Parts: sequence; structure tokens; C-alpha cells
Amino acid sequence: MKILIIGATGTIGKAVVSELGVRHDILQAGRSRAPLRVDIASEASLRELFGAVGTIDAIVCAAGDVHFGPLATMTVDQFKIGLNEKLLGQVQLALIGAEHLTDGGSITLTSGILSRDPIKLGSNASTVNAAVEGFVRAAAIELPRGIRINAVSATLVVESLPSHGAYFRGFETVPVQRVANAYAKSVEGAQTGQVYAVG
Amino acid sequence: MKILIIGATGTIGKAVVSELGVRHDILQAGRSRAPLRVDIASEASLRELFGAVGTIDAIVCAAGDVHFGPLATMTVDQFKIGLNEKLLGQVQLALIGAEHLTDGGSITLTSGILSRDPIKLGSNASTVNAAVEGFVRAAAIELPRGIRINAVSATLVVESLPSHGAYFRGFETVPVQRVANAYAKSVEGAQTGQVYAVG
Repeated sequence: MKILIIGATGTIGKAVVSELGVRHDILQAGRSRAPLRVDIASEASLRELFGAVGTIDAIVCAAGDVHFGPLATMTVDQFKIGLNEKLLGQVQLALIGAEHLTDGGSITLTSGILSRDPIKLGSNASTVNAAVEGFVRAAAIELPRGIRINAVSATLVVESLPSHGAYFRGFETVPVQRVANAYAKSVEGAQTGQVYAVG
Repeated sequence: MKILIIGATGTIGKAVVSELGVRHDILQAGRSRAPLRVDIASEASLRELFGAVGTIDAIVCAAGDVHFGPLATMTVDQFKIGLNEKLLGQVQLALIGAEHLTDGGSITLTSGILSRDPIKLGSNASTVNAAVEGFVRAAAIELPRGIRINAVSATLVVESLPSHGAYFRGFETVPVQRVANAYAKSVEGAQTGQVYAVG
């Protein structure tokens, strides 16, 4: 398969590239460091990317910012960060990307454990992650040509403990390789409309 | 209790007004027909409303548009309708409204069955409803002064069968009074962070 991975240089993206790269042709994209540059929050940038890569068999997205901060002082503009980046970015990636997928191709998006297991400062992430999951369940029953869509919803990965551990005290963590497996299950399996919880 | 009900003239809003009006003082708000006018998608409009009503004990929102239409032709601007109206509108209602609630007051938002049970044309609603539920779970653990927040997630109400029945073939329907009960449970009960599924 020819697989486009967005967010390819992030902690999760790198593990997905390693896992799927053994068996498939990988196109690595990202905002600033990957060979292919894309800003998923920009429709123009997405169209430019898909114009460059041509028809593909699978799209994986492990990208999308959210805002972390106290609910009491959160502004609407801060709340919009996650809506525009991780939610609308992934939605328009799916809408535009579907046009460039082969029949039976797949789209795999990223949500996260905060949709079901909230933490302080995480209301923007909880909202956005839940939204991505709702979108995946709905889009799965409307996508044409046998195109599938799933989401991976992981807990904190061991590799991110140094940077994010303080926010996730008491949460089970998993090695990023286990999260990469869930993306492979989505891409190489046959299910659709699923949210793969890891951890 | 002094209870602000937004969307008070809608099918669900009217039933909530009837249910809670027996026991409490109700302030009815809405976009065009209720005594108090508010556009929840406008921060300025929300601040004007709360300036007018003063301190209250509970806020109920049964308002917020989404876009219904085929996924294949949905534009980003169409997708933003639900994000700006039903999602961000309710989020900023909660953020601003919390400042005007008494200690131990409550906020009750509206999601809907499509978050878990999608239909064709409903991807915007599924996304937004799931997002509202994610927000409620997260906001509940951060709201100050014992303020509670819940969502009601109802199936199609019998009263809306003439207008919406064709989109929900095979779905169980419930009388709107059962949905109103869920709002009363949120307002007059003690739980927080809950999504009350009806139907």
C-alpha cells in the first residue's frame, strides 16, 4: 500500500512509520520537519499536499494541536485552537483526502483518552477528542467506494512521560509501539467506524 | 430556584419550561420568540443576557443549530455551522454562565443520540453532540464553587416525527415529556459530568 502519514515526525507518528514502513510505501508529511509539508488546518495546504502525492491507499493522521489550560480562564479563542486544528483539521483531511483514496482505502484519525477520562486543564482536548470519535462513527456510514475510517484513542505513551506525565498522574501508560499497532489494525484491517482505545 | 432556559420556545424547551415551571421561577430566552433574546453563538449577546438576568441558580440550554447534509459534498463552512452554534455556543454559554451562577448552581446542555447512533446526513450533528458530551465530562471536574454540568442526549421525540421522522427511520422515539424529565434530573438532582441518554 501507498500510505500517507501526517504528523510523521511526532512521537506517535514515528512509531507508525516504523510499524507500517516494513510492509508498505510511506509518504511522510508534517508541519515543519517531514519531507512533505502540510498544515491540516488549511484547506489550501491540504489540497496542495494531495495534488503532490496523487492517489493513495491509506491516510493516517497523528497531528493536531489542542489548548491546555484552566477552564475558569479559558477564552473562546483558546477553545477554538483545538476545534480548528485537531478537529476541523482532521475533518477536512478526511473530506478532501477521501477524494484521493483508492476504492476500499482507509482514513485513520487520532483522538485520545481524555474524551472518556478527563483531567484538569484538559477540557479543550476532551471536547475535541470526543468530537473526532463522533465524526468517525458518522462518516463511516457515508463514505463512498468502500472507504473506511477509524480513530485511535490512546492513553499517555511511556515516551511522553517526561513532557506530559505531570498532567496524567495515575494514568496507565503504554509503550508507543502498542499505539502504533492500533493504527496498523485500522489501516491493514477491514473495520470501519471504530474507535480503538489503547490503554 | 431561578432558572434560565435558552431555547425556551422549541419543542424540547417548551416541555422543560412546563416541567420546571411548576416548582421554580423560569426565565425564558431564545433567538427570536422568547421574552429574553440571545444568540448563544455571540459572546456579546450572552454577556448582555447575563447582565440583564443577574444571578441565577440554573442554566438550561435546549438550543444550537447543526448542519444536515451529505458528507460527500459537505463544505468546511457547512461543518462550521454546528461547531459555532451548538458546540461553541453551548461552551461559551457554560464558560460565561458559570460566572453568574450561585454556589452549587447547575448548567444543563443538549447533545443528542447521533453522537452514538449515526444516520446519513448527520455527520455534523454526530461530531458536535459527541463534543458537547466530552466537554461536559471535562468541565465537571474543573467548575468552581460546586457548580455542576450535565448534558441530555435524547433520541427523536414523538412530537418531531412529522418534521424529522424520515431521517430517523427505525429509531425508538420518546414523548418530549420524558426528555424534559432528564433536564429536571440534571437541574434538581446532584450529579455532575453526566450524559443523560433518553431513548
